[in-house]
Amino acid sequence: MPDETPSQSAIEALVHNVLNGKPRAIARAMSLAEGRTADAANLMAELHRHAGRAHIVGLTGVPGAGKSTMVAALTREIRKQGKTVGIIAIDPSSPFSGGAILGDRVRMTGFADDEGVFIRSMATRGALGGLARASLDTVDVLDAAGFDVVLIETVGVGQDEVDIVQAAHTILVVSAPGLGDEVQAIKAGVLEIADIHVVSKADKPDAPRTIQDLTGMLHLGRPGKGDKKWTIPVIPTSAETGKGMQELSEKISEHYVHLEESGEMEVRKRQILEMRIIKTAEDMLRERLLNERDGKLQRLLDQAYQRNMDVRSAAKNLLSAVTGDDGDG
Amino acid sequence: MPDETPSQSAIEALVHNVLNGKPRAIARAMSLAEGRTADAANLMAELHRHAGRAHIVGLTGVPGAGKSTMVAALTREIRKQGKTVGIIAIDPSSPFSGGAILGDRVRMTGFADDEGVFIRSMATRGALGGLARASLDTVDVLDAAGFDVVLIETVGVGQDEVDIVQAAHTILVVSAPGLGDEVQAIKAGVLEIADIHVVSKADKPDAPRTIQDLTGMLHLGRPGKGDKKWTIPVIPTSAETGKGMQELSEKISEHYVHLEESGEMEVRKRQILEMRIIKTAEDMLRERLLNERDGKLQRLLDQAYQRNMDVRSAAKNLLSAVTGDDGDG
Repeated sequence: MPDETPSQSAIEALVHNVLNGKPRAIARAMSLAEGRTADAANLMAELHRHAGRAHIVGLTGVPGAGKSTMVAALTREIRKQGKTVGIIAIDPSSPFSGGAILGDRVRMTGFADDEGVFIRSMATRGALGGLARASLDTVDVLDAAGFDVVLIETVGVGQDEVDIVQAAHTILVVSAPGLGDEVQAIKAGVLEIADIHVVSKADKPDAPRTIQDLTGMLHLGRPGKGDKKWTIPVIPTSAETGKGMQELSEKISEHYVHLEESGEMEVRKRQILEMRIIKTAEDMLRERLLNERDGKLQRLLDQAYQRNMDVRSAAKNLLSAVTGDDGDG
Repeated sequence: MPDETPSQSAIEALVHNVLNGKPRAIARAMSLAEGRTADAANLMAELHRHAGRAHIVGLTGVPGAGKSTMVAALTREIRKQGKTVGIIAIDPSSPFSGGAILGDRVRMTGFADDEGVFIRSMATRGALGGLARASLDTVDVLDAAGFDVVLIETVGVGQDEVDIVQAAHTILVVSAPGLGDEVQAIKAGVLEIADIHVVSKADKPDAPRTIQDLTGMLHLGRPGKGDKKWTIPVIPTSAETGKGMQELSEKISEHYVHLEESGEMEVRKRQILEMRIIKTAEDMLRERLLNERDGKLQRLLDQAYQRNMDVRSAAKNLLSAVTGDDGDG
């Protein structure tokens, strides 16, 4: 099945079509990029050379903050300026089925006829891991395909999810007025990574308090990301009325200029690359470990189950088996 | 500082005190277990031999579902039966400060004078990873310390968080009536892992619909965990009035008996151990990779930044460097 396992020349043709922004090629390249095949490696090596021009914007916030609606409104605004937008939405999904829940995406269908917008929903990958690695490879695909802005939307809870959004040049954190205590506590963990705070549903009566809380927090000098030259704005918006969307879009462009002019862009790009290299190495190891599931791992598991071996010793043995070293590195 | 870097005999004394249920020793062992030192490895190897008797119960649900309140009410109910309860709460926290947000825990202070209850809040670990490995090692500490029930509470969003709760023998998924669309979509991803569904805030007017939805879903034969002999119950509760808490506690005990009698317990214990061995091996590799941050990784990063090398090739090189193999396993 040549369509399933493309040859090197098929990869070259695919790269050619991705670079020319062909939607079907982009979708196909993304599916390939999510995997761990040799073809995926060849594809990504080719595309990596052509990536690096897009402005990568991360958007996160707790469940209920109105992230998807915000992504849609922001995309419309960026499109008005004639820029193209690639969107990667990391959807929570079943650890069993592996399928993305597309409900929220339905709201985005206004872009179905717009070739300047490409939307990809990614499932979380369950116990097999590798979500961050796979997501960030798909960012490279959209980047190489020439999209001016690549938007990554993740829920602001979960280690991998927060890591992923931190692989953006510009990070937006969306806060909605009037969420419950438990949600607010979770939100606190993600506020510090914002380059731009966005308050959604700003026409709600309790919005001024949310804005005030965020502004107050910033004035308290909460530890930022070490980029002292950038003043983090708090932007009230309403996706329904369109309020604040133009200001938001302008701030995003302004942040890009700031990153380039201050030299911070190189710092961030190197941090992002470092994270991607580490995540990819971990993913490669994970694949080797899973390949041992019926072999070495079973024997170690038997011993651990009988409590003749503890978990760390078993892990050390497994690591030695898949790397061929003595386990002490 | 012998207190900071315990010798082997100090580890033996610590193990002795943990096995005797001494709270300060338990807290100290947990702090040690979260780390990656040789002492931590020795400690965990000792404790692993004594673990394996606790009933490990996982409790999860989306933000706002009322998980912490449920943990408190359930703990009170289990204590009434004279059983002891160890609690591990995985708190979302700053990827920067690494500190746990303890707000929700304040509600639990009713147990401050009860030696039969031990509560540990764990921070998420940010980009360094290892949350699952560290959390499950602390479960072993509580298990070895003789707690009858070990409760693990995680937010039901995020890959690591869902993995962690799946390391329980019995999994409770908490649903609250009347959460928003975005939250409901996220919830769908975690419903399938439930052994017992718990509906919180069952005195709310829209609770019957939540109960009906869950029951309907179960009758539709949604793919379960392969344990066909267990009928997944839906239990309406109110943490405030105490409604349903006794039934919940009984169902948890019933599930334990079911697991033991059906042979499913061995299956689950082996799955949990397998996951822990893999997560621990990954964590060991991660440590080695991070040790290369100033060495090999910097040189690969330079090449990748110049786009003379793609991410996967850099990752492969890095993996070879820390494992001493040729990168093809």
